[in-house]
Amino acid sequence: MLYLIGLGLGDAKDITVKGLEVVRRCSRVYLEAYTSVLTVGKEALEEFYGRKLILADREEVEQEADNILKDADISDVAFLVVGDPFGATTHSDLVLRATKQGIPYRVIHNASIMNAVGCCGLQLYKFGETVSIVFWTDTWRPESFFDKVKKNRQNDMHTLCLLDIKVKEQSLENLIKGRKIYEPPRYMSVNQAAQQLLEIVQNQRKRGEEPAVTEETLCVGLARVGAEDQKIAAGTLQQMCTVELGEPLHSLIITGGSMHPLEMEMLSLFSIPENS
Amino acid sequence: MLYLIGLGLGDAKDITVKGLEVVRRCSRVYLEAYTSVLTVGKEALEEFYGRKLILADREEVEQEADNILKDADISDVAFLVVGDPFGATTHSDLVLRATKQGIPYRVIHNASIMNAVGCCGLQLYKFGETVSIVFWTDTWRPESFFDKVKKNRQNDMHTLCLLDIKVKEQSLENLIKGRKIYEPPRYMSVNQAAQQLLEIVQNQRKRGEEPAVTEETLCVGLARVGAEDQKIAAGTLQQMCTVELGEPLHSLIITGGSMHPLEMEMLSLFSIPENS
Repeated sequence: MLYLIGLGLGDAKDITVKGLEVVRRCSRVYLEAYTSVLTVGKEALEEFYGRKLILADREEVEQEADNILKDADISDVAFLVVGDPFGATTHSDLVLRATKQGIPYRVIHNASIMNAVGCCGLQLYKFGETVSIVFWTDTWRPESFFDKVKKNRQNDMHTLCLLDIKVKEQSLENLIKGRKIYEPPRYMSVNQAAQQLLEIVQNQRKRGEEPAVTEETLCVGLARVGAEDQKIAAGTLQQMCTVELGEPLHSLIITGGSMHPLEMEMLSLFSIPENS
Repeated sequence: MLYLIGLGLGDAKDITVKGLEVVRRCSRVYLEAYTSVLTVGKEALEEFYGRKLILADREEVEQEADNILKDADISDVAFLVVGDPFGATTHSDLVLRATKQGIPYRVIHNASIMNAVGCCGLQLYKFGETVSIVFWTDTWRPESFFDKVKKNRQNDMHTLCLLDIKVKEQSLENLIKGRKIYEPPRYMSVNQAAQQLLEIVQNQRKRGEEPAVTEETLCVGLARVGAEDQKIAAGTLQQMCTVELGEPLHSLIITGGSMHPLEMEMLSLFSIPENS
């Protein structure tokens, strides 16, 4: 059996009781290590689970899926994913490969950012399509995701923006020379995301367009959702450029137009003080 | 401290390790018992948690919030919610009341239907606004939610339909006579939801409108997501009227127009055989 097990969002103890029981009895346990991170590292997980974990980066899952699935028809293999297993399409791919090989699978769900954002008080059912904001480079500055934000706002829906994670990146030089030397991981902050958004807003104005979002649009910045030291800040997009939320992971919500009174009241618990 | 603790979707062991530790040390533990259900009852939870649970129905949470919060400033009180605590607005209300009384709170997240639906292979970020389908009566047959489905489909987004739950309902006679006698709980099935949807489609045609959904629209029926015996069936809306999914809870997804090949491949794992 292949078990896809969600680890939730905080630390080692956010695994479910059922998930922990499975981890402890599987013959091999893989830890997916690229789409998200917990506030603790592999060692802390290994200590709490009482098991050695095999790190599986994107290359491994895509290229060596057969190794992961090896003998999973006659023994139990666990594949651990931060959040819930179906946050990323790579995991669908693993399920499909397992099924083709006649290997049964089971999913043990957990919280992911997709539902835990509800903690800020915005109503989950009022979220539209989720977007990803990627790190811009000098030559690649995609703005197309902004159309989705616009659509959501036109339909009075909130937009959850997932912020870029760069893990196991190679510099252009190392890539060309085929050296497996990796840059330190980078996680986009709410500040960086807000600054990129404001640049898009300014570009749209230069082109004579009416941007769907302005400096004054109400946003919510979230950091380390589900962890003891999680931080939530509600304020304008302009304020999101400077608000201090600390360590990764960060997420940003761009609110829809109209808000329920209860949503406003909840957000007021997290509002950024006037003169900051 | 007030702890809002998600129980996940399956059975007693779907609570997180952290959640279980908190439950075992709190002075009082409430179980919210109206927005969703697990596949096991209160007794099974009590046995596994090793704690007596106080059932809190909607009346109690809304009218007796002060009882729930009593002494939570000097002791720990847990409020258990099936799924994740922020699925329903009632829980925002409890948080706001606690905050006003100076009682700190913490949320221990878990899977909810809002993210666990990803198990069918449809990509979570492509879901638009979530709708609720309620039981129709002879005199109350609301169709307005259908506009949201239409908007979602126009924007190529999937729609998660949460199906009605009637718990602690009184008959009109018992209500009038003030007798606290309740009807057995009712849970809407995918069949019932699909039949109501098809009636709306037919009504729209009668009025000369072009319905956003037809008998042939690809849908996904889900039952007992997260439980050992969960069932998923992909097929047309017409097929959803008769597909057998068994016991509650059920949910229904109306897919958006365009699909990613990986989404199609995943759905094919769950497709209803041709001649059924």
